[in-house]
Amino acid sequence: MLQPPPAQPGMPEAAIDTPALLLDLDAFEANLDGMAALLAPTGTRLRAHAKTHKSPVIAHQQIARGAVGQCVQKVGEAEILAWGGVPDILVSNEVVGAAKLARFAALARIARVAICADDAAQVSAIEAAAEQAGRRLTVLVEIDVGAGRCGVAPGPDAVALAQRIAGSRNLIFGGLQAYHGSAQHLRRPEQRQAAITGAIDASRRTVEQLRQQGLDCPIVGGAGTGTFQIESASGVYNEIQAGSYVFMDADYARNLDESGAPVGTFRHSLFVLATVMSTPNRGVAVLDAGLKALAVDSGMPTIWQRPDIRYLSASDEHGKLDVGSETTPPKLGEKLRLVPGHCDPTVDRYDWYVGVRGGRVECLWPIAARGGMH
Amino acid sequence: MLQPPPAQPGMPEAAIDTPALLLDLDAFEANLDGMAALLAPTGTRLRAHAKTHKSPVIAHQQIARGAVGQCVQKVGEAEILAWGGVPDILVSNEVVGAAKLARFAALARIARVAICADDAAQVSAIEAAAEQAGRRLTVLVEIDVGAGRCGVAPGPDAVALAQRIAGSRNLIFGGLQAYHGSAQHLRRPEQRQAAITGAIDASRRTVEQLRQQGLDCPIVGGAGTGTFQIESASGVYNEIQAGSYVFMDADYARNLDESGAPVGTFRHSLFVLATVMSTPNRGVAVLDAGLKALAVDSGMPTIWQRPDIRYLSASDEHGKLDVGSETTPPKLGEKLRLVPGHCDPTVDRYDWYVGVRGGRVECLWPIAARGGMH
Repeated sequence: MLQPPPAQPGMPEAAIDTPALLLDLDAFEANLDGMAALLAPTGTRLRAHAKTHKSPVIAHQQIARGAVGQCVQKVGEAEILAWGGVPDILVSNEVVGAAKLARFAALARIARVAICADDAAQVSAIEAAAEQAGRRLTVLVEIDVGAGRCGVAPGPDAVALAQRIAGSRNLIFGGLQAYHGSAQHLRRPEQRQAAITGAIDASRRTVEQLRQQGLDCPIVGGAGTGTFQIESASGVYNEIQAGSYVFMDADYARNLDESGAPVGTFRHSLFVLATVMSTPNRGVAVLDAGLKALAVDSGMPTIWQRPDIRYLSASDEHGKLDVGSETTPPKLGEKLRLVPGHCDPTVDRYDWYVGVRGGRVECLWPIAARGGMH
Repeated sequence: MLQPPPAQPGMPEAAIDTPALLLDLDAFEANLDGMAALLAPTGTRLRAHAKTHKSPVIAHQQIARGAVGQCVQKVGEAEILAWGGVPDILVSNEVVGAAKLARFAALARIARVAICADDAAQVSAIEAAAEQAGRRLTVLVEIDVGAGRCGVAPGPDAVALAQRIAGSRNLIFGGLQAYHGSAQHLRRPEQRQAAITGAIDASRRTVEQLRQQGLDCPIVGGAGTGTFQIESASGVYNEIQAGSYVFMDADYARNLDESGAPVGTFRHSLFVLATVMSTPNRGVAVLDAGLKALAVDSGMPTIWQRPDIRYLSASDEHGKLDVGSETTPPKLGEKLRLVPGHCDPTVDRYDWYVGVRGGRVECLWPIAARGGMH
């Protein structure tokens, strides 16, 4: 069942029921504008990642500011975007199974879509889906540029797979998917630079070997919020797949710049609003937002503008706060904004964004693609 | 948006789309029957916790086997159960905020409901909600029996709060909420025994002090899957609030009995079905189930009946498997059952249970109360 929204447009922020997923619209729009401004002079296209926001409403705002389209990780996400009018969608991931591939192929009737492969058997399966749907489908080769997850090795293996795609009757070779996920969260700029230099070298070498075989790469895509300025200056990557920049989270806030300060390119726009539901007078206050309201895989949330309070631990429906003796302890019923440790899986818990500006609720947007996606 | 179901009744398990939340119906029913059989001779009532399953369908099966009703942690969960015909619901938690309390009070028209308090201000707020709704509401006092989360201190503080409830015009004192959450996951039986002995002593003392003030406790409730046999034999607790026993998870499977073997009272009935989506030949296989498909707060999932394979790490939509050289590596497209690390927040990711028996899909049940509940 869809959860009822925890707010109505027009009400003050203090009246929002909790837990609720808040979007600070000023910060969010500044992030959208900031990314557009940073990429414009590089000539690199933005294909923002919808696995973060899972919302056609946000996708359209990115496209309105110049993004060429969206990335997704799941066919279910591609469906929600395509049904919501997004015209250009890359499934930046492998998709296995005839049923899923048939659903993907069906989307080619209403949107420009592409998909990735890292195995010859998958190329055959996508070819079969294309044939059955009566549509030519675009396939990118995913190469492993350092993440050690999916992807064929850069160089000859990638060229062989691309040739197989290009030689398939109903497939079009679309380029390279070259994302280095773990590099995004390396804390020091020289670590990120080193990791992405490797990814750029591997991508450049593969692009050149493909060209020698007569294969061009319309897309060389990758990069995330932590490293996109390196890829966008590379001359090799032509599409940036950043997602988290629209929201930011406590984990990304731990990335540092050259001076050793937190990278301040983007602002926190995403918060979980929570209420103090118990103050049992033991140096502890308890919030109504725990494991089901917040993803804790990348650490506990921080408390917005209250560095004196620490979110100690989460159980299913409770969050315990350490309320030291030196602080002004939050009162029973008080509402606090939490900065989630990890934005993507936190968003995935909710049905609604509550957009706020100037202390009031301005809009509600459905998180249409949330949930265990198949 | 509600996700489309990943299966249809009648299809073989191998045809289920992934990731999907599987319920092994034989194991599930054995767990339901096993709990009923264990509690019957003790005279202790089962008020099973719906925060685990979030489904009126499962609640009714527990009630059909003798459970007196259900517990929930959120008013939103209480609504889903009451709307689904569950006749007796305890919100085993504090609820703060006039809007939520008004929703709670509205449920008293269609179900027998009760709620907890651990603060005098909350008693006043519940009294106001009762008055406004024109209903008398039942309120339990939550006491902290060792968990260090919500709850007043056992003894005089609890008695004072109970007297305040009993003296409120529109409230009925319903007894004690005395749950020791962290004790459930203590690994050794003597640790669990020691923790719950403390909880029993604190509860007994408080019950006696209440009786001296002329206040009876219709409910003394608590206990979970890890310790319920201790509370049910205590002569003090009269309601058991176990939830996870219906599913079990990898974390509960690490609890040990007196012989040092895993406690085998209940069986794993809940699985995430996942597909191998990439086999990049580096001792790694990649599954299509990561952080959005599985809760990892209590550790990574285990692979059902494949102790030779280890689920190494989860990213948003991927799970990396360590495929050692000595194993028969899973093939691209192969489906594996995962035992989630923590059942409650894993269930909360999905819209559907896919009930399987004898290798076929038997039923689909909606997880009606899933999601960021307010």
